[in-house]
Order: sequence, then structure tokens, then C-alpha cells
Amino acid sequence: MGLSLYEIKKIESIARQQKDGISLAQAALRVGGVHEAVREHAREVLLTDKADYYGDSQGLRSLRWDLTQYFKKRYGAQVSLQQVMVSHGAIGAFAALCAGILKPGDEVVLPEPTYPAYKNTVSAVGGRAIFVPAYVSDNGEPWQLDIDRIHKTITSKTKLLVLANPSNPLGAVLKIEELEKLAHLAEKYGFYLVIDEAYEDHVFTGKFDSAVGLAARFEHVVRLGSFSKNFAMSGWRVGSMVASQKLIDYLVPFQDAFFSCPNQLVQFAASYALSRPDLIKEARDKVQDGYRIAMADLAPLVENGMIANMVNPSAAFFAFFKVPDCQNTIDLVYDMLHAVRVAVVPGIDFGPSFGNYIRLCYARNPEYLRDGIGRLKNYFEKTLPKRVHHQGFEQKTL
Amino acid sequence: MGLSLYEIKKIESIARQQKDGISLAQAALRVGGVHEAVREHAREVLLTDKADYYGDSQGLRSLRWDLTQYFKKRYGAQVSLQQVMVSHGAIGAFAALCAGILKPGDEVVLPEPTYPAYKNTVSAVGGRAIFVPAYVSDNGEPWQLDIDRIHKTITSKTKLLVLANPSNPLGAVLKIEELEKLAHLAEKYGFYLVIDEAYEDHVFTGKFDSAVGLAARFEHVVRLGSFSKNFAMSGWRVGSMVASQKLIDYLVPFQDAFFSCPNQLVQFAASYALSRPDLIKEARDKVQDGYRIAMADLAPLVENGMIANMVNPSAAFFAFFKVPDCQNTIDLVYDMLHAVRVAVVPGIDFGPSFGNYIRLCYARNPEYLRDGIGRLKNYFEKTLPKRVHHQGFEQKTL
Repeated sequence: MGLSLYEIKKIESIARQQKDGISLAQAALRVGGVHEAVREHAREVLLTDKADYYGDSQGLRSLRWDLTQYFKKRYGAQVSLQQVMVSHGAIGAFAALCAGILKPGDEVVLPEPTYPAYKNTVSAVGGRAIFVPAYVSDNGEPWQLDIDRIHKTITSKTKLLVLANPSNPLGAVLKIEELEKLAHLAEKYGFYLVIDEAYEDHVFTGKFDSAVGLAARFEHVVRLGSFSKNFAMSGWRVGSMVASQKLIDYLVPFQDAFFSCPNQLVQFAASYALSRPDLIKEARDKVQDGYRIAMADLAPLVENGMIANMVNPSAAFFAFFKVPDCQNTIDLVYDMLHAVRVAVVPGIDFGPSFGNYIRLCYARNPEYLRDGIGRLKNYFEKTLPKRVHHQGFEQKTL
Repeated sequence: MGLSLYEIKKIESIARQQKDGISLAQAALRVGGVHEAVREHAREVLLTDKADYYGDSQGLRSLRWDLTQYFKKRYGAQVSLQQVMVSHGAIGAFAALCAGILKPGDEVVLPEPTYPAYKNTVSAVGGRAIFVPAYVSDNGEPWQLDIDRIHKTITSKTKLLVLANPSNPLGAVLKIEELEKLAHLAEKYGFYLVIDEAYEDHVFTGKFDSAVGLAARFEHVVRLGSFSKNFAMSGWRVGSMVASQKLIDYLVPFQDAFFSCPNQLVQFAASYALSRPDLIKEARDKVQDGYRIAMADLAPLVENGMIANMVNPSAAFFAFFKVPDCQNTIDLVYDMLHAVRVAVVPGIDFGPSFGNYIRLCYARNPEYLRDGIGRLKNYFEKTLPKRVHHQGFEQKTL
């Protein structure tokens, strides 16, 4: 059984070759790269040999310690050194978890719309991804998670329930009561609730409740974290997992089996980054600029009905909207990529129920973002109407 | 089914905490770290944002290109860009291969003594490691691979046959005729022959025949490479796989599922390293110094019969020897670690048939290495005879 790369990866790969292409596809924070203070710290480490040798499979002890202190200060959570595993991005920890927990045929519940990468990681070790359309929004109201609907999909084969909070692509944020309800389901049925908090630092409206405290207290709650979205370190590949010591102890040999250890240099850099919450604020301000630009510049398309169901997100990097009368946006997205050289992500990447949506990442510099949305508007208003049938927008039109 | 970290990792972790400990355990090239020219190149990359974003799941295109040119120049092998995947160390590519190829119960033949990490990677995705004592040495003659013995272990469930060449821990080197014979077996039975050439640049005596050309030509041959042993970049985590384009295309989504992409910075640094074969020579000279010191300083223990079966290796980083009258060296190794603070690896890590061996890594600075071997000699000559029964050296004595 082969796997397919999800569309984002294919689209980014094409966009990377385009001379004047604009990519609003991949969820990287592209507002000037990693902060120069973090890069400078990495440069200093490179004057020594301390990052040169294999390190601890569980991750650098000093970074794990710094994370425990960070969780305490930021969320008031008591997390021990033994409850933290540092990983090659959050996906690295998720890979170890899937390999450790899933037997062939075991089920992983992915409430839709879901982060595209989970499915392949589950499938790569023989697990079955179970999609359930679980986020609902009526008349432009904020997206809400339908926990009862999730509850109904739980079977004796359910081993993991995975949610990004804040949500990618919705930017919806769960309340602590919802997290606790889910945690109790996990304890009751014996599966692991995995909360991926990659976007923890990009909540614009309302409060953010982290699951990190629950992960330290409940046997069946796992919290994933990342340095990709707050410190823009996506290409540096560093993330973390918080879980019970028992689970971490069990998973470390799995992480070792795939990674030996995470890259050492980035772990020193990540420790430094944690000491600079001001850098997070700087990044967040830039993303909020992008948020305002995207909402304002896309508004005319909402008004003229060319895009729909766009709920103002509370968090994260994305505008997520439906294309009316379009069954599946995949052909449209590729056509737009070639016609106006702007890359966005077709909804199908986020689950089968959202195939008629598009995700646009606004974590970009203002000028670049405005250029991209301008092209997208141009495509929707001028190119698209010329295509024979909008309704029947299909492979043949490409 | 849980996994256990192999002993090297546990021992290194203890050794790292010891104040004046000497580690001759892990197979890292510890002779001054990554060359300063490579570190300086990485420092320059860090002045830009080019390593900051997610990259190609198959690895940086420019590094893949540089690898193809390197293979051509070094081995006269024609390898296309599409036949190369860059990975998080050689183990990262091996993880993608195991996940892509192995179904539960599928067999992976590991000729003993074998590199310890393979087994866990195989088990992590549900495969079965089949150990076969396949290297033989009579009366101190060089270790030879018994291909007929391997042949006999092939079943319809065999999916991979994995060999490090040069061998870790033996330092034995296969001839091209042997590689071809194995490749023909692979083609005949339809399994993949995996040749891990991490030590390609540390062959002291005789010629080294790479399998990279075979991997580019045969559908069932896979060649793994690493920057850990030649450029001392073990903590940087960069390796590669060469295989048929069909297999690489199939495996890229598996690599993506576990890693998203390799760390970007180290890939730029690896490209630079490839342009500096003089650095390899420098590293090799240092390892050869270590080799000479180890052979000379261990000779008295061979002469007095305290260690045995030590064949002068043709390549790699290791002295590998038997402890007579000791069933399993694991207790002895831990006792030595605590008694004289010198870390080596018990034979059990390399397969069940070599439990009465010890591996000692001599890729260290001369003074450090001499200190370590001195302590080991002291342990063997003074501490060990005091232990009640050498024969019955067991858990209780610790």
C-alpha cells in the first residue's frame, strides 16, 4: 500500500520552481525567517563542537528542562523532565507515537477538517485514519467542535484521537471544558487524546487553554508542541511531546529507531528561543497584520459570492473558505497556480468532507500577501468566469 | 510490543553524566568535532533565511545534485537526481524503507555481527529481525561473509537483507564479487539488499567497492550513506539513500510522513562538505592514528589471553574482541563503566551470537584514547581477577 504526498507538498514543489510565484500554501511563518537573535545564537554554538555528536534519543536534557520551566511559567503546568520528549518537529513525535501504539487495522479518529499530515503518518505504520466531519458552523458563527459526533465514532479499535488546537485550517480554539470532556472520553475508552498545539502562540481573540497540564496529569492525554509557527523554525525541525512518563519511556526507543536523536544544534537554538518570549510577540504581531490584510482583501470576494463560509478565525494562519458550485477545488487550485502563479491548498487535503474549500495562509509579509490575494481575486473575477462551466470545472479544463 | 534501547545508548547516557568518564562506546568520530570549515559554512548560511522554511521531502535538490556528481567522480557511478533521497541520517532513510516495505511478520535478515540500530527500526514497524551468524574468522584470519549461510535463511517472507559495508563492528570489507552475488540473490528472490556505507571513507587496507553503482542499476539494491563518520556530523543528522527511481518515488511520502523534511541547514552544510574531500582525508588520518594506538595498546591483553579473537580490521572505527570464559559481557561492561569510568559496548548489541564480545571505538583523540585503553587494561588486569568468579560474572556482582 503506497502513500501519496498530500497536495500542499506537490503544490509547494511546483511553486518553488516558479520564478515570480506567490505561495500562500504551506503553513510556514514567512515573515523574515527565524529571528536573527536565534540564528545568531546558533552561530555561536557552531563555534564549538557541542552540537556535533549524537545526543540523547529523548532530546537534549537542557532543552527538556527549559521546556518544563516554560510550561510552568506560561500555563502554570507541572511537567517533569521525564514527561518531555524533544523531537524532529511535532510530526517526529507523532511518528514515534503512531509506531509505538498502532497495530495494523487500529483506528485513529481525525475530526475534519484536519491537518493533512496526520493521515499519512497513521497509514505509514498500518493504522486506519477515520475521518469524521466534526467542526460545524451555522451562518458564519465560529466553528464549534461536535464532541457527541466524535463520541459516536469511537470503537474498540480506536487508539488515537488527534486534534490541532488551535485548529489548522479553521483557527478555531477549544475551551478547557471541551478539552476535559475529550480527556475523560480518552480515559474512559482507553485511547490517547493527542492535542497538537503548534499554533498556541497565534491566538488573536479570546483566551488559549493549553492541554499541557492535562497531558502531565492524565495517562491518556498527549500534547504536541512545535517551534515552527511561533519561532518560524519550520526548516529547523524541532518539536516536543508531553505525556505520562510511562508513555514517554515507552516511546523513546521508537523515536530512537527512526531518528537516533533530533538534530543537536536546533535544540540549543530552541532553548535560547524559549528565553525570548518577546520574539513570539514580534512574530504574532506580523501574523496579525497578515490576518487583517487577508480578511479585508478577501471581503469583496465574499460580498460578490465568489467565495463563501469564511468564518473569521480566532487563531492560526489561515483563511478557509468554500467555493460555491465547485464540487472539489483541486483542479481549480492547480489551474490558478498555473494561470496566476499563486499557490493555495485545496480542501481535500483536510479531509473528504471539505473538498470544496480552499485554505490560504496569511503568515506572510504584507506586500507579498497583498500581491498573492490580488492575483487570486483576479483569477476568481476574470479567469474563472471564462472557463466554460464553473459547475463542471474539471480535469479537462486544465 | 515495546522496544528496548540497545545498550550503547544506555551506556552513553550514563557516561555523559560521569565527570571524568571516557567513552569508547558510541561510533561517533570524536576527534575535534565537525571541521571548522564546515561549521563556518553553516554559520554563513545562518546569516540568511534560506534554511528556515520547510523544504523538499526528498531532500534539498542542490544536495541531491551534488551527491550525484560526487558518486560519479568518486565511484564512476551514474546516479540520477531522482534516484537520491536525502535523509535524517542513514537511519532516517532506513526507517522510511522499513515503513514502506515491511508488513507485520515480514522478515529482515541481519547477518551477525550487525549494526545495533537496524533491529529496532525493523521491529518498530512490525517487521521480524532474523539474525544469522554469517561472518566467520578462523585463527585470526580476516572476517569473511558466508553468503551460502545467508542464502539458506532466505524465505518467501524475506523483504530486506541489511549489511553495513565496511562492517560495523568488524571493519571487514566486501569485495565487488560478493556484492554482486548478494545483488543477484536479491533480484532472484525479490527482496531488497541494503548496503549501508557509513564507513566508506575509513578503509585502511585494500580497495573499497561501493554498491552505489549497483543501487542505481538494480531494482533490488539500496545504498545508504551518511555524513556522520567521514565529516563527523553525527549530531547534525544527515544521510542519504540511492535506489531505483521507482523505489525512491514510493518512499518519499513515507519519509514525509515521519520527518516532513530533513533539517535544511545541515543539507547546505553537507553540500559544502562534499566539495572538500581534503577534510575526509584529515579525518581518516586521525582515525588511523586511533587504529594504530588501539592495536598497539590492546596487544598486551591479547598476549596475556585476557581478550581474544581480535582481528585487525581493514576499515571503520572499532576493535572487536572476545572475552574468554565470559558468556555475556554485558555485566562486565557495566561493571567496568562504574569501576574505571570507561565505556565500551557489550557484544549482545551486535546480535545474540556475539554476546561474549566487546566493541571499542578508537575514533578518538590520541590522549583520550590512551587514557581509556589504559583504564580498560587496568580493569582487566587488576579489578576483574578480584571478582569472585570470572566465569560466573553476573548481575549480583554489580
